[in-house]
Amino acid sequence: MSTLVDAAVMRQPGTLELQRFPLPDPEPGAVILEMSMSGICGTDKHTFRGETRQYAGTPHERQIQYPLICGHENVGRIAAVGGEVLDSAGRQLRAGDRIVPAANVSCGRCWYCRSGQPYYMCERLEDYGNSLNCVHAPHLFGGWAEYMYLLPGTQLFRVPDELPDEVAVLTEPMAVTHGFERARRLNDTFAESVVIFGVGPLGMCHLVKARLLGAGHLIAIDRLPSRLAMAADFGAGTLLAATELDSGELIARVREATGGRGADMVLDCSGVPDTFVPSLRMVRVGGTVVEAGAFVDMGPVSMNPNADICTKNVSVLGIGGETAETYEPAMELLVRNLDRLPLDRLVTHRLPLEQAQDALELAQRDEAMKVVLSARSDQER
Amino acid sequence: MSTLVDAAVMRQPGTLELQRFPLPDPEPGAVILEMSMSGICGTDKHTFRGETRQYAGTPHERQIQYPLICGHENVGRIAAVGGEVLDSAGRQLRAGDRIVPAANVSCGRCWYCRSGQPYYMCERLEDYGNSLNCVHAPHLFGGWAEYMYLLPGTQLFRVPDELPDEVAVLTEPMAVTHGFERARRLNDTFAESVVIFGVGPLGMCHLVKARLLGAGHLIAIDRLPSRLAMAADFGAGTLLAATELDSGELIARVREATGGRGADMVLDCSGVPDTFVPSLRMVRVGGTVVEAGAFVDMGPVSMNPNADICTKNVSVLGIGGETAETYEPAMELLVRNLDRLPLDRLVTHRLPLEQAQDALELAQRDEAMKVVLSARSDQER
Amino acid sequence: MSTLVDAAVMRQPGTLELQRFPLPDPEPGAVILEMSMSGICGTDKHTFRGETRQYAGTPHERQIQYPLICGHENVGRIAAVGGEVLDSAGRQLRAGDRIVPAANVSCGRCWYCRSGQPYYMCERLEDYGNSLNCVHAPHLFGGWAEYMYLLPGTQLFRVPDELPDEVAVLTEPMAVTHGFERARRLNDTFAESVVIFGVGPLGMCHLVKARLLGAGHLIAIDRLPSRLAMAADFGAGTLLAATELDSGELIARVREATGGRGADMVLDCSGVPDTFVPSLRMVRVGGTVVEAGAFVDMGPVSMNPNADICTKNVSVLGIGGETAETYEPAMELLVRNLDRLPLDRLVTHRLPLEQAQDALELAQRDEAMKVVLSARSDQER
Amino acid sequence: MSTLVDAAVMRQPGTLELQRFPLPDPEPGAVILEMSMSGICGTDKHTFRGETRQYAGTPHERQIQYPLICGHENVGRIAAVGGEVLDSAGRQLRAGDRIVPAANVSCGRCWYCRSGQPYYMCERLEDYGNSLNCVHAPHLFGGWAEYMYLLPGTQLFRVPDELPDEVAVLTEPMAVTHGFERARRLNDTFAESVVIFGVGPLGMCHLVKARLLGAGHLIAIDRLPSRLAMAADFGAGTLLAATELDSGELIARVREATGGRGADMVLDCSGVPDTFVPSLRMVRVGGTVVEAGAFVDMGPVSMNPNADICTKNVSVLGIGGETAETYEPAMELLVRNLDRLPLDRLVTHRLPLEQAQDALELAQRDEAMKVVLSARSDQER
Repeated sequence: MSTLVDAAVMRQPGTLELQRFPLPDPEPGAVILEMSMSGICGTDKHTFRGETRQYAGTPHERQIQYPLICGHENVGRIAAVGGEVLDSAGRQLRAGDRIVPAANVSCGRCWYCRSGQPYYMCERLEDYGNSLNCVHAPHLFGGWAEYMYLLPGTQLFRVPDELPDEVAVLTEPMAVTHGFERARRLNDTFAESVVIFGVGPLGMCHLVKARLLGAGHLIAIDRLPSRLAMAADFGAGTLLAATELDSGELIARVREATGGRGADMVLDCSGVPDTFVPSLRMVRVGGTVVEAGAFVDMGPVSMNPNADICTKNVSVLGIGGETAETYEPAMELLVRNLDRLPLDRLVTHRLPLEQAQDALELAQRDEAMKVVLSARSDQER
Repeated sequence: MSTLVDAAVMRQPGTLELQRFPLPDPEPGAVILEMSMSGICGTDKHTFRGETRQYAGTPHERQIQYPLICGHENVGRIAAVGGEVLDSAGRQLRAGDRIVPAANVSCGRCWYCRSGQPYYMCERLEDYGNSLNCVHAPHLFGGWAEYMYLLPGTQLFRVPDELPDEVAVLTEPMAVTHGFERARRLNDTFAESVVIFGVGPLGMCHLVKARLLGAGHLIAIDRLPSRLAMAADFGAGTLLAATELDSGELIARVREATGGRGADMVLDCSGVPDTFVPSLRMVRVGGTVVEAGAFVDMGPVSMNPNADICTKNVSVLGIGGETAETYEPAMELLVRNLDRLPLDRLVTHRLPLEQAQDALELAQRDEAMKVVLSARSDQER
Repeated sequence: MSTLVDAAVMRQPGTLELQRFPLPDPEPGAVILEMSMSGICGTDKHTFRGETRQYAGTPHERQIQYPLICGHENVGRIAAVGGEVLDSAGRQLRAGDRIVPAANVSCGRCWYCRSGQPYYMCERLEDYGNSLNCVHAPHLFGGWAEYMYLLPGTQLFRVPDELPDEVAVLTEPMAVTHGFERARRLNDTFAESVVIFGVGPLGMCHLVKARLLGAGHLIAIDRLPSRLAMAADFGAGTLLAATELDSGELIARVREATGGRGADMVLDCSGVPDTFVPSLRMVRVGGTVVEAGAFVDMGPVSMNPNADICTKNVSVLGIGGETAETYEPAMELLVRNLDRLPLDRLVTHRLPLEQAQDALELAQRDEAMKVVLSARSDQER
Repeated sequence: MSTLVDAAVMRQPGTLELQRFPLPDPEPGAVILEMSMSGICGTDKHTFRGETRQYAGTPHERQIQYPLICGHENVGRIAAVGGEVLDSAGRQLRAGDRIVPAANVSCGRCWYCRSGQPYYMCERLEDYGNSLNCVHAPHLFGGWAEYMYLLPGTQLFRVPDELPDEVAVLTEPMAVTHGFERARRLNDTFAESVVIFGVGPLGMCHLVKARLLGAGHLIAIDRLPSRLAMAADFGAGTLLAATELDSGELIARVREATGGRGADMVLDCSGVPDTFVPSLRMVRVGGTVVEAGAFVDMGPVSMNPNADICTKNVSVLGIGGETAETYEPAMELLVRNLDRLPLDRLVTHRLPLEQAQDALELAQRDEAMKVVLSARSDQER
């Protein structure tokens, strides 16, 4: 008689309900993870709204299928190991070890995998809680459940003891912020001025990265006063309310805050296409725009290749996902700076699995920053 | 009684005529250059057509004024030196030395100059043959003349003896191709597949750079069969006729030629905005587009920040001018490879100053690649 | 009748005495700086001991001459300006402005200056307080004086209002830590493990850089317990006493602290050659050693190109001075992190000019970290 | 009854003899390669002389064991495939396909493999023809045989049709030349002056890389006139005979050939430690030394951390092996430049397997550049 475990299943857009699945044994190389926390990502909100076209223009462009157990920002403890399974440092994993698993599984064999490209460019990429849905056994392919099944080949990152779950759960979105380092490859400097355009959860992770990697003046732009206030707590020195200032005024204010030149870097994390061109215009001549928020196709924009890109020498870096190599450094960075930034405040809400539907609705409201689901109700904050 | 020298003066759009100016003595730090050749650049063609808005969106955005002696792609011999004047290697220059002068003079004192940014980002940039017109003495600020006046502070690059004038005259446009190296900073590779979109003079210089710096498969796109044929002579392995293939077909052909993935790099040198979005679409996931041709504002385009940039992880590098540091390496590269590429064929026409008007018209016709003006009629090819 | 100002003159090794000089007027482009503080650098200690061979193996190798007004780590307020003089951001400077001047003046005309190399590689480099001695008028070429004379062409960096003098005085040594960023160019990561070998003033500046640019585990090695204690206050997680552990033990402890691999980066700031080879041996395979402390020739060492460099894939970066481009970012980094590190504790002693001899002796004793001289006795700590 | 195949077995130092092994069937994921050519590498010569300590100072330091089938520079045609096996571009391989296999097999699971480090840093690296000896079935782990057994997980690179075997066999040593690109990461330039210190096979591969990636003036140093002559044919403009010039004279000549400054880059490929310090001294201030030849421990040298590294701002890059990501670009680079360099002349001798002993002796004599073994006697040159 097998044990049954609860999972929050998205049966169709807008509908989440608890469902029970048998707890599987791990095949060789696989791991059963007892979930501590699983974040709600912007992509999950899109899926909840039925916006299911992902990775447009890539070899693994896809339409997400229901039913689905979402959840790819995960932290938990290992319940069972299928034989020899190593963490990212090459050490054997055992039951009880606390880990963050990679959000994706790459094939290791396509040109992208073999050429040292970021693993999320894999031509046959599979994503937990996205392409890996719960139709097929062993079903538990997302973190919104009591247990999760991690396939052989999944990269597994040990969590430092000092890093609390509510910070460790941010590891995956922190690994999406690699555009910041990539921008630095183009400009040999530090202490640069940085605009974070949109300080929702992904924007806040970018702000954390910029702050902890030694950026200079930080300028946050958002519609919500609550988010701007949090950005200030994390080091943003200039706060610009997108509800009160139009595009031209935002650009003017950024220039004003940067000695008239424009920002050295703009991290566009708004999630909407309308901020792309203003980003190009608030960056300085020779500056860099990281486009990290436009994960879903929400239509085209009009821009000017001459004045916005060429003459102005602007660099634009599109960032479509997280790198496998930055999970471990991301956790290391967070654990070394627990005393310097209020990192445990980024998770504003923690709900039990049975309230998954509420959690999704909450995650789309103004008062929420990062909302996480937790299997164990006794740990609610 | 002062000597008088001829110059081709652009009096207004579409009108060039010879005019005489007194040959000045050089002030301290200045140089009088006896011109050998001066190229006709794409910008000059725009100015000839009355399209005079330059550097849109930068601190030195400007409207070019007439009358003007154009010519910023120059090579000549020093006629007189104003005291101690050093070449780029720190050696004293003397009458008779053959040099290529930098096309621009930067102030050396603004934030861009002081922060190690490329010199053409200078907030007070002055350009020979553009912002420096011939209204003010000593007038001879462009290369379409028998002699040219080079202001104190102009960088001066000695031409290797083995490098013929008709190749040395390409040094300045070759120094505009630094987007290729900049793209390499983002991708640790070589022998990559490269599309050159538009193989006019600037595109050909990019093709030369890519070929000589060890790119792999080279794909040339152009409207003109004659240009594609020249591209083939310089190493392009795939030739795509933009007159016969629409945008979608071009993208499909590039994919086909690159194992289905798209090109690692696209160098957009077309000079028109319409090629920008197709460039984004013919590059592979994670690839780089260098936007080096949109020097003049010819209107906006519609693009998709999600599918064209973010999800696809595309990097875009806007390149608005040449770097001072690459003149010398550019000449060194050319002289080391005279036996490997038919570099002396890039200048297809050489006309004397008195035919400047014809030269400008010729430069806009299909049969011309690089057209140069020469003061000395006995050297015509 | 001209005003006379005091300066501490090093007349010969081991002897400092006050001397008066007339206060000059600034020539066009020059600035008179009223000194707030001037640090005592490791090089100054060498000069005090008569070890005067500098920049061995470079075009500007030299023997320092006495008498000398030392002091190249400077902060002060402008007393007089010779006409139009701009700060590093291109803004006009006026009397009363607080600045840090660059420690060196480059010629702007040699190959190094013209090729975008760091300014301290200039073939005709002049250094305040070193090559520029006080034999020649206007004499005041070092910061250990009431006023300092800054030659035309000296780069001048405005100090942010919030940055106290006792932190601003560290700008120059902070600009020497650019080896850290250079090492990052070779390894696309952050949160890496870093050994700082020697945590005297230069080592502490490297520690500050590593901490504020998001390094991970920091390991400090020093002979002095007081220095190790300060390193701990700045974020070092492992402290190794070089008096108690021999070279082999230090290497073993670094491995232990880094999962058995060795450190990702070693910043060798000891100032003695004996730490160079142990640095190569405590770095991991593929790691980077920054050699930033061996400014004076103190003899050769024996090393193994096979096992220490080649097979192990070690990168070594020699850093012989500070870059002009990092003064401004260094101040920006410091001012943004005043609340996160006890930066005002790095200056442990502040003495008036008349106690310069005592200050030099103190600076060589164990209890001192950075010792500074100050003209105004009322500001002593 | 199984087929038997010949292999040249190194039974002990100095002794090679033919031995027969059964031709195995490939396990799933494995490939049987019918050998075309297999090069004799410097390491093989060391093994032949009994110098068997490899990878000193790394986690996979080892003592090579006999008997051994050497041969890790391989090209051949696939004879049999164990099911689904993909090439480096993700395409299924079939019998008859011509490939170059990677020389090493990495574990894919240690920290180095998981952190995006070069694959030869793998903690559990296995090398064909080195650590993989022929004691264990299926024995055929080196290329000096009629057939070779390639383990599952070995990276396999398809050879372009136009690339002849005698050039394709150089792919592996060409993949060792990645120090050149790594050096470029530190210095944003091209057309730089490059010394190749030692133009044996590895030095010649570096010369090819430098030439084809657009280096400028190339300076070759060697003991052998024949090698210098070949270097000239590949583009070296200055040839220095190490038999006629001592270390100081070599340094002086390099300075002379580089405008007095020293070379921008020195590629030390001599295979002996004595050239390391002269390399540091013939590079310019701020230049880079790639140490790519000291693969075997031949003792220590004396160097000066102050003058040779720190003050002079020299960067040193140790390169201990080849990267997996550069096999494919290396072949692409070679095939695109068959018309520009006499690449087919680098293999000077081709001997059949039964003359393996002679081949090893020949490979150590002056007249040989690259010597290869070939199973099929009808193809001898």
